[in-house]
Amino acid sequence: MRLRNKPWAKDKLREYSNFVIHEPEQHRGKWGQVFEKDQPLHIEIGTGKGQFITGMAKANPDINYIGIELQESVIVSALDRLIEVDLPNCKLMNVNGAELAKYFESGDVSRVYLNFSDPWPKTRHEKRRLTFKSFLEVYESILVKNGEIHFKTDNQGLFEYSLVSFSHYGMKLNYVSLDLHNSEYEGNIMTEYEEKFSSRGSRIYRCEVQFIAE
Amino acid sequence: MRLRNKPWAKDKLREYSNFVIHEPEQHRGKWGQVFEKDQPLHIEIGTGKGQFITGMAKANPDINYIGIELQESVIVSALDRLIEVDLPNCKLMNVNGAELAKYFESGDVSRVYLNFSDPWPKTRHEKRRLTFKSFLEVYESILVKNGEIHFKTDNQGLFEYSLVSFSHYGMKLNYVSLDLHNSEYEGNIMTEYEEKFSSRGSRIYRCEVQFIAE
Repeated sequence: MRLRNKPWAKDKLREYSNFVIHEPEQHRGKWGQVFEKDQPLHIEIGTGKGQFITGMAKANPDINYIGIELQESVIVSALDRLIEVDLPNCKLMNVNGAELAKYFESGDVSRVYLNFSDPWPKTRHEKRRLTFKSFLEVYESILVKNGEIHFKTDNQGLFEYSLVSFSHYGMKLNYVSLDLHNSEYEGNIMTEYEEKFSSRGSRIYRCEVQFIAE
Repeated sequence: MRLRNKPWAKDKLREYSNFVIHEPEQHRGKWGQVFEKDQPLHIEIGTGKGQFITGMAKANPDINYIGIELQESVIVSALDRLIEVDLPNCKLMNVNGAELAKYFESGDVSRVYLNFSDPWPKTRHEKRRLTFKSFLEVYESILVKNGEIHFKTDNQGLFEYSLVSFSHYGMKLNYVSLDLHNSEYEGNIMTEYEEKFSSRGSRIYRCEVQFIAE
């Protein structure tokens, strides 16, 4: 995504502390207290402008959601959306996905969503892909036992890479669609990117994979 | 595939005993003796008219190949092709893929190929798909330790089903292509079916999966 510089973004994020989580390390192990209700927590890593996470929060009031996005100039658009819909079970976090273990302990998170992550197509950038082994280790360390990652992308190379990466990590594939929008899958909530690229004819790939407790 | 009745097929298969294996149960555990050279054995289940298996045998003289096909009226076309190319490392077998454990013992087979298997799309026919659990059990029982299945198909539903079936069986995914003919994969030998349907624009899916020894 091309980023516009928004120098006022940091201040705006600080201002809306009911929607944006500050000092997340203080909530480690007790995330239920951050929301109105103490219920399962699902997180999206790379939440962009927030259409997916707010859509999910609206559709599933019995789940708490956190949208995580590193880019201030992007997450501030998700904040605008959240201010508008004002959901008690949805918050945002402006941190790096690689550092999630600082903010969540084992069992804090019930599900991880990855949507249209940067494909980093060059082999030398493999380690930056959000489905690279070192990221899977982070997700496993914060998830509940037998927790799942739900992943979708329009990038064929990233999807192929990720299926192999999940399998080599020892994860179990529970669901796969190689053409989500022409499948029988119901209740799909689209991201902004997904709306744009699927309308241009891109296939959307989706899978659900599960960590297997030893 | 629509089958033409060929009443003479059985006799022709019997006649060419240098290319068609008769009484395969007699070779169980000693398949090296059936070929000129005692070298690794790869089998294709559902070999059709034999373009793939003869192409592979020609390209890889250090591997023995057996093409397995239940339909007499189809395998007889593979026989015609084999008579023409006369390869010492390629044979045919007119048996049911579900009964392979009668003919091969553990370690007899180094690799299993499944190409454009019947998709059996109805849920009630799931057990007939060559990637259903009961078939995977058969393949595992005849393969070498950590042996692989190489699978390709143009059927999206069968490919999705098979990826999940392999994973739930505990197999490891080592390679996947969601568009083989536009990938960097080299040395692909096409089946008759693959030539026909890819020329009509069908995507070809391919994967390599491995049984993991406990």
